[in-house]
Amino acid sequence: MTTTTTATATRDEQAIRDLIGNWCRALEAKDADGLIAGTAADAHLFDAIPPYETLGAEAQKAAWLQCFPYLPKTIKAEVRDLAITVGGDAAFARYLFMMRPIGEESPCGQSWLRVTVCFARRAGKWENVHSHISLPFDPMTSQIVNIPDPEQGSA
Amino acid sequence: MTTTTTATATRDEQAIRDLIGNWCRALEAKDADGLIAGTAADAHLFDAIPPYETLGAEAQKAAWLQCFPYLPKTIKAEVRDLAITVGGDAAFARYLFMMRPIGEESPCGQSWLRVTVCFARRAGKWENVHSHISLPFDPMTSQIVNIPDPEQGSA
Repeated sequence: MTTTTTATATRDEQAIRDLIGNWCRALEAKDADGLIAGTAADAHLFDAIPPYETLGAEAQKAAWLQCFPYLPKTIKAEVRDLAITVGGDAAFARYLFMMRPIGEESPCGQSWLRVTVCFARRAGKWENVHSHISLPFDPMTSQIVNIPDPEQGSA
Repeated sequence: MTTTTTATATRDEQAIRDLIGNWCRALEAKDADGLIAGTAADAHLFDAIPPYETLGAEAQKAAWLQCFPYLPKTIKAEVRDLAITVGGDAAFARYLFMMRPIGEESPCGQSWLRVTVCFARRAGKWENVHSHISLPFDPMTSQIVNIPDPEQGSA
């Protein structure tokens, strides 16, 4: 879904891929500083769980530090259906994400999550300035609806 | 959150605001064609309700046509906390959205929704190429968590 095919756009798209990959490796290492390494100080987040919005990289880091004790011991951060659009000094990526537990059962592995990440190039560097993570919900029950895992067959 | 302050960026930002405003007016008019007027034919949607992704403007239109009979007779489409970033030929907006029922009770009015819309300029025209709409959920209960309405006081 890249809107240009120039060498610059290709390089920018690779930079975005690297940011997403680095974020996944930081999550697997439970490295809170690594998780915000590509995040702007004033970044805005619509996270999957409350609060409904989180303002700033430091607040994101604090949320991860609170979350780490509840995560499985070993996780694999997986991305699928990634599409990146670069258009000058703004870019965005959307994908499905799973925090897959390795060697134990965990609610983390029950569903893929939907992710949109929006980037701005500031002082020559791509930074995550907004992200949105969610699951859809059934309006009749207000319950979230899991996204099946292709590796597990029908969910 | 606009990343440049040139006249072009201001004009682009206004174009994005107009697209969002036009979409709101189309929703109030229950005008399915109007709802996809600024949407790319190959647009991708992570909607608030299943299916977890919708591919293409025509599929979005079909979903709206199915939805219209369940909407309140009169609605006001409201946007708050809008932030737009324009960076060349890509742009994105995030905001809170409410489909406020007028003159009747409706589940539509129970919560604001979180919205991210990503735009690409194609052949000189800004188009919605990806959007993401959601509510956060409580991971202990898998129930969505409403976003309080400032007009109603505490929710």
